[in-house]
Amino acid sequence: MSHPHPELGPPPPLAKGALRVVALGGLGEIGRNMTVFEYAGRLLIVDCGVLFPEEEQPGVDLILPDFDYIRDRLDDVEALVLTHGHEDHIGAVPFLLRERPDIPLVGSRLTLALLSAKLGEHRIKPELVQVEEGERRAFGDFDLEFFSVNHSIPDALAIGIRTPAGTLLHTGDFKMDQLPLDGRLTDLAGFARLGSEGVDLLLGDSTNAEVPGFVTSERDIAGVIDDVFRKADKRVIVACFASHVHRVQQVLDAAHEHGRKVAFVGRSMVRNMNIARDLGYLKVPGGLLVDVKEIGDLPEDEVMLVCTGSQGEPMSALSRMANRDHQIRIEQGDTIVLASSLIPGNENSVNRVINGLTRWGAKVVHKGNALVHVSGHAPAGELLYVHNMVRPRNFMPVHGEWRHLRAHARVAALAGLPEDRAVIAEDGVVVDLVKGRARIVGAVQAGYVYVDGASVGDVTESALKDRRILGDEGFISVVIAVDSTSGKLVGEPQIHTRGSGIDVEAYDEVIPKIQDSLERAAADGITDPGQLRQLVRRGVGRWVNEAYRRRPMIVPVVVEV
Amino acid sequence: MSHPHPELGPPPPLAKGALRVVALGGLGEIGRNMTVFEYAGRLLIVDCGVLFPEEEQPGVDLILPDFDYIRDRLDDVEALVLTHGHEDHIGAVPFLLRERPDIPLVGSRLTLALLSAKLGEHRIKPELVQVEEGERRAFGDFDLEFFSVNHSIPDALAIGIRTPAGTLLHTGDFKMDQLPLDGRLTDLAGFARLGSEGVDLLLGDSTNAEVPGFVTSERDIAGVIDDVFRKADKRVIVACFASHVHRVQQVLDAAHEHGRKVAFVGRSMVRNMNIARDLGYLKVPGGLLVDVKEIGDLPEDEVMLVCTGSQGEPMSALSRMANRDHQIRIEQGDTIVLASSLIPGNENSVNRVINGLTRWGAKVVHKGNALVHVSGHAPAGELLYVHNMVRPRNFMPVHGEWRHLRAHARVAALAGLPEDRAVIAEDGVVVDLVKGRARIVGAVQAGYVYVDGASVGDVTESALKDRRILGDEGFISVVIAVDSTSGKLVGEPQIHTRGSGIDVEAYDEVIPKIQDSLERAAADGITDPGQLRQLVRRGVGRWVNEAYRRRPMIVPVVVEV
Repeated sequence: MSHPHPELGPPPPLAKGALRVVALGGLGEIGRNMTVFEYAGRLLIVDCGVLFPEEEQPGVDLILPDFDYIRDRLDDVEALVLTHGHEDHIGAVPFLLRERPDIPLVGSRLTLALLSAKLGEHRIKPELVQVEEGERRAFGDFDLEFFSVNHSIPDALAIGIRTPAGTLLHTGDFKMDQLPLDGRLTDLAGFARLGSEGVDLLLGDSTNAEVPGFVTSERDIAGVIDDVFRKADKRVIVACFASHVHRVQQVLDAAHEHGRKVAFVGRSMVRNMNIARDLGYLKVPGGLLVDVKEIGDLPEDEVMLVCTGSQGEPMSALSRMANRDHQIRIEQGDTIVLASSLIPGNENSVNRVINGLTRWGAKVVHKGNALVHVSGHAPAGELLYVHNMVRPRNFMPVHGEWRHLRAHARVAALAGLPEDRAVIAEDGVVVDLVKGRARIVGAVQAGYVYVDGASVGDVTESALKDRRILGDEGFISVVIAVDSTSGKLVGEPQIHTRGSGIDVEAYDEVIPKIQDSLERAAADGITDPGQLRQLVRRGVGRWVNEAYRRRPMIVPVVVEV
Repeated sequence: MSHPHPELGPPPPLAKGALRVVALGGLGEIGRNMTVFEYAGRLLIVDCGVLFPEEEQPGVDLILPDFDYIRDRLDDVEALVLTHGHEDHIGAVPFLLRERPDIPLVGSRLTLALLSAKLGEHRIKPELVQVEEGERRAFGDFDLEFFSVNHSIPDALAIGIRTPAGTLLHTGDFKMDQLPLDGRLTDLAGFARLGSEGVDLLLGDSTNAEVPGFVTSERDIAGVIDDVFRKADKRVIVACFASHVHRVQQVLDAAHEHGRKVAFVGRSMVRNMNIARDLGYLKVPGGLLVDVKEIGDLPEDEVMLVCTGSQGEPMSALSRMANRDHQIRIEQGDTIVLASSLIPGNENSVNRVINGLTRWGAKVVHKGNALVHVSGHAPAGELLYVHNMVRPRNFMPVHGEWRHLRAHARVAALAGLPEDRAVIAEDGVVVDLVKGRARIVGAVQAGYVYVDGASVGDVTESALKDRRILGDEGFISVVIAVDSTSGKLVGEPQIHTRGSGIDVEAYDEVIPKIQDSLERAAADGITDPGQLRQLVRRGVGRWVNEAYRRRPMIVPVVVEV
């Protein structure tokens, strides 16, 4: 897509005493959050997450930030701070550590526990620095202070960054539930204290900046969940994110209350809930949990299952249940609760799962028909509190698509920020804070890096373009054997097609055309395989377009014999 | 996907004096609505629409109902009744008329005008029977009565169908705006009159059955639109469906009021608005319209454009504006209004358009941030009125996915319908009304028929499966030339790949493997090309899976020389 700052070239060298901010992900998109701060030649990184692919990135497993900007300077990295344990904030860490394994990883207890489990699967032993809210800790010239924030995973942090060039506040992901289940509030008082010291640059979560008002308290979901259990007379199956410890706690409590045993289903759910339980974030009454294998022995109204798949992921337990392709067979009267937000882009898959479950007679409770989920991100009403408390000199909206970044800038303006102090940048745009003033000074490379199967980066935009053509139209391959000296065709051209919807019988129409044009070429003395391929590609392409109005990929192969 | 009625076989012959209902589309999906009624060997068809493809149908242009069930009986068709002029109700008519061009097409004035324009593009001259609300007209044993209904296009009809086997009411698409812009109410009194006569089977629109309550009146949008115009100081661009005459009327009125000239952009918008204007459905003040070419000569605050593209269709004017690939260049301060619903499945494309427009500095007003659209389908509160007025003996929810059909059955139950009188069927399920009782008796073929380019039906499920594999993983083609008598390899295997993300250098790894296995095959006396292909497919497949954890399509080609 074209760039709204097309004039941006490489940035100038960073002025002495100034600070540089470059987001390698999370600006202009929701996901793969990663921000690099530079002062006096040293770097601090906040978050290192992944983005999940959409339909324009077919076959891709994950999308990483492009580490190219820091690749030659990894030894300058003082620390990588992780604000919380969600995949879009920690998912790319294993890939960065492949390039320098001993980068100090800084985060809260739960964040580091989830990250360690992930790194263990990649067989990486990281250098961990555990911190907690209220703590101050310097990494070189970056003097960090950690603030508790409330989010849809426990133990999330905002980061104050004091440097000789000025003081920054990076909110991470947050909302401001005033009655959180674990009693851990977003430390607005701390924000205010830092603000009164003077914040030169605020970087704030923009995900919900378009949404007016306030998020309903997590507490208000409890009554709805209780109601679901009261009305359910067969199995209850709850699907949510494997990291949403508070939501799982709520359904465990409800199951316990209503005399149901609970089984966790799915690898990531089992793994994360074990971690959360071991660290004391999840409280499980004795005898509540059973193994999923024992579920069949219990009466249907004494069972609850907790699984992933709330986003309609095709391989998840829930999708397989919806397709009757799972040991748990959905039956008339089962109640399924999708207790999570619907991430934009997943609407179709979630709709398919709801329809699949419904056709077997299950009752599906979801965000659209009951208050079984609230967002983890502060909407405009809550963001105003932060702006009014912090009163930053400069502001950079982060974590959002363009619509969200612009909306957050409007919120800042409402709170009194002068228009020229809001810096709306996208990935790769270089923002320098010089003498208390933040300005865009250039841009660096910050494209998508694709993970597909075992390898990183070798699936390129051009391969994806080919996939899109192949996926829409299929291909026709035409193999011709030619005599290497005379250039004359040997035998008949062989045609193979997949996905074009063109029938074998149609080959009889086009083979004579190919033969004709090759004979003419031979008569003209054309023997170069490249020219012959071009001839075949054009001829077959024209035929299929005229006869079928389609444009499959034409793949000519010349075998010289 | 598996079938919830797996036991259903072909239906028995229709009993004497009984009526048969088979939906060939619209049940279990939103789109390609088509219902076939049969009495005493004669057929009546209501609607004949298309479904728009989703990501699982890559490269497909349109999806049609499968006409196979009626193909041999087209001469028995008394008439095809079109309830209104939306594509999902009339879009497949040209394809049906290819098989029998003189089927009488019955519909209201606007419906037939829109249909004629479409058929004209296909060079078909149809046999048209224009009807209007209040009218009664018999086609063989099918004695039809037409009722006005209010929907997001003018001149929509519900159909009463009196037959010797019983009386039916098919609502078509409808809602019950009590203050419609054109004053044309849904004829609830007519429904009640038919109900008091006795309705044996009600077929009712289920699209919004999950939504509680009532639809806001179209009239309430006017204030919001007025507000948009009052705040806009540069261009205003409104995107909506090319058939939503009332919405266009509203924005024309607002433009007129605020001293702006109007240009229509896009072929279907221009065509439909000409028809609506000629027939008097759209009232255009003199001098209001200008050609899009003259827009550049007018001050920016005296201009409004009306275009399609509100669903993010990639080739639409609006998408191209968002990508700066259109003569209209979006600039800071332009206001864009997306005045239409967001059809499920289009979320990603619409989001891309909103972000694209926003990054150039435009203000985007849409359903998510202002009341600029209301739905055209009755939600549960309005459906209850219909059930309470009609009190049908049997009920069949139509026009909806499973979740909507089940929700509509629940609405019927709330209104007092006995549970065993709700018949939830999906496409192809055969429902017989025998002695006042509707029951499922079997199923017929009702799969998807794909239109891709110039042809209908030759892109099959298997071609789509190939496209999905090719689109996710690409392909590797391996061409080997073998001596036709000895079976020995001639020259080196040639490898070509597109979309797999595998580099040319990697070929050196696998070519010796292929050569080895072919040498061994030759030593074992294997010369059959089929066996050689199998050998190559397995070997290369194993290599790519082990080395890359990917599964591109492997296409081995054996050329015998």
